[in-house]
Amino acid sequence: MFDFKTVSLSEDGKSLVILDQTLLPGEMKYLTLHTEESIWEAIYKLRVRGAPAIGVAAAYGMYVAADSCVTDSVEVFMKELERIKTYLGSARPTAVNLFWALDKVFAAAQDAAEKSGKNPDAVAEIKLAMRKEAERIHEEDIITCMLIGENCLELLEPGMGILTHCNAGALATAGIGTALAPIYVGNSRGYGFKVFADETRPLLQGARLTAWELSQSGADVTLICDNMVSLVMKSGKIRAVITGADRIAANGDTANKIGTSGVAILAKEYGIPVYINAPLSTIDMECRTGADIRIEERPGEEIYKMWYEKPMSVEGIKTFNPAFDVTDNKYIAAIITEKGIARPPFNESLNNFFK
Amino acid sequence: MFDFKTVSLSEDGKSLVILDQTLLPGEMKYLTLHTEESIWEAIYKLRVRGAPAIGVAAAYGMYVAADSCVTDSVEVFMKELERIKTYLGSARPTAVNLFWALDKVFAAAQDAAEKSGKNPDAVAEIKLAMRKEAERIHEEDIITCMLIGENCLELLEPGMGILTHCNAGALATAGIGTALAPIYVGNSRGYGFKVFADETRPLLQGARLTAWELSQSGADVTLICDNMVSLVMKSGKIRAVITGADRIAANGDTANKIGTSGVAILAKEYGIPVYINAPLSTIDMECRTGADIRIEERPGEEIYKMWYEKPMSVEGIKTFNPAFDVTDNKYIAAIITEKGIARPPFNESLNNFFK
Repeated sequence: MFDFKTVSLSEDGKSLVILDQTLLPGEMKYLTLHTEESIWEAIYKLRVRGAPAIGVAAAYGMYVAADSCVTDSVEVFMKELERIKTYLGSARPTAVNLFWALDKVFAAAQDAAEKSGKNPDAVAEIKLAMRKEAERIHEEDIITCMLIGENCLELLEPGMGILTHCNAGALATAGIGTALAPIYVGNSRGYGFKVFADETRPLLQGARLTAWELSQSGADVTLICDNMVSLVMKSGKIRAVITGADRIAANGDTANKIGTSGVAILAKEYGIPVYINAPLSTIDMECRTGADIRIEERPGEEIYKMWYEKPMSVEGIKTFNPAFDVTDNKYIAAIITEKGIARPPFNESLNNFFK
Repeated sequence: MFDFKTVSLSEDGKSLVILDQTLLPGEMKYLTLHTEESIWEAIYKLRVRGAPAIGVAAAYGMYVAADSCVTDSVEVFMKELERIKTYLGSARPTAVNLFWALDKVFAAAQDAAEKSGKNPDAVAEIKLAMRKEAERIHEEDIITCMLIGENCLELLEPGMGILTHCNAGALATAGIGTALAPIYVGNSRGYGFKVFADETRPLLQGARLTAWELSQSGADVTLICDNMVSLVMKSGKIRAVITGADRIAANGDTANKIGTSGVAILAKEYGIPVYINAPLSTIDMECRTGADIRIEERPGEEIYKMWYEKPMSVEGIKTFNPAFDVTDNKYIAAIITEKGIARPPFNESLNNFFK
């Protein structure tokens, strides 16, 4: 489908290897990281981004960083591991998947420590357990993406025009993505989808990442500005909208990259179904509705300065720069996870996933 | 309200003076133009833009260029004038207002030529008639803007949050604009509007021009990306949408800068009225519906290359870059002209303007 790897363990098992996404699409450069500082920096600077990809990078990163700790003492090693866990967690304190992955690998280490007891090879065994847990997280992500792709494909037809927003593709996961997964699966079976990618201002994830990875895979992709969605939908070129999600409430309200709610409302007006593709881990059954989701606001410079040679508006102009918005469940036709397709009413259908 | 002049005649009457809009908002520089080549270039390169502003610039430009023609022969002068008219018209062949203004000034010259007959000062009299006609077009534009502002203000209340798209302000006219006119008029009476300006990709007229001129006037303006409209509307901060228009069909369907139709659909969904402010000359009663309006497509480089230090998507990526879209009349609450407010059904109300 494409020949890049967003995140992986080096062949010698000593380093975390990531594709530096801050250089895309101009340059395709892999970073081989084995110090905790370089791994922290890669997560902090968004060289690796997307919730599932961050999780896998953190899992491998924690293993790799701990692997260089030379000691025979389980106690010394576990103390060092706790320090590394806290340190890596500080790279993106709001990324839920980061903590989830660090906790998983730490728990695997604790298990192994208890089992190994006074065994002289105990530290080596703990390290091995950590590596296995990281590899398991990696494989699980690959399978989740494939299942989401297969499940969503049931809703699509060959040759369809599909609109996507932001990047929920291979670059956001260790697998074939979430929103883009059915496109890769379908295209590999000759579906020949015609994909429209919103550029996704202000950070241009659609233009920089989605258009790039779809091009790499040989998919038919057309880049448009966010404000062209209405015209493209009116022209009849779009028959489905597929996006990822950052957080899904129990009633199906979905937080995702800024602009998603506008796209969904336009889709409803033009009679086009909106599909949200996301792993089960994105569904927060503790969160009753979208009203409970806090929207992060980011600096205005992203709008009027970043990317540009000269400021493109008045210096210091007042801005409003929310990173996400919440799409009301009434605009969503289905939520597709690795466990299947949830249809409205979502309170019921999402709950069924967890039974 | 603000202390810049988009387009004017120099004090000595020898030059067209324009504010170079390609340098905004970084630099505020006036160009004093008296050669036909420099005037042609200013229109071609969009140093002056916006239909009414182009009309006034063309009218003064034609007078200024012809004024340097030294001859006593009416025949020689009129032949030269015809050449200048054709030449300036070639600067933006799709700009209806450009031809309209050139035709007006040319007709004034023809009238004067007929009246002056064999009078030895005939050429001087023709030149004076041209200058007067250009000044009349200028004054008419100023008055039209003021009337649109007053008429639209009837629909607004003090302190309202207002969203606008692209630039239909003072920079697009010789007066106080069309969409922005009620904001300037209202604010001068202490209305204290809270304006949200869409940045308007790909050419950023909202960020570069609207945010700039509103800031200059002291208005409360907040810059947002086009894809933030839905969230801002949902938050309750917007109580009216006001935009300009490039062409209005007899049934009220309105062609305007790309993105307008999406904003209008979102506004309807959130129960917010959409007002289109435009001079009568924008209404094309020969054009039955929006389906008859051809949409200009522009080069993809505007999306993925222009403005940026490095390409922000795959080099040569397939794009779709329509410059305008058509907003269906069902999303428009009122069309405001210098003659008053038209409400649906627009076939009737617009027709009344021309009785």
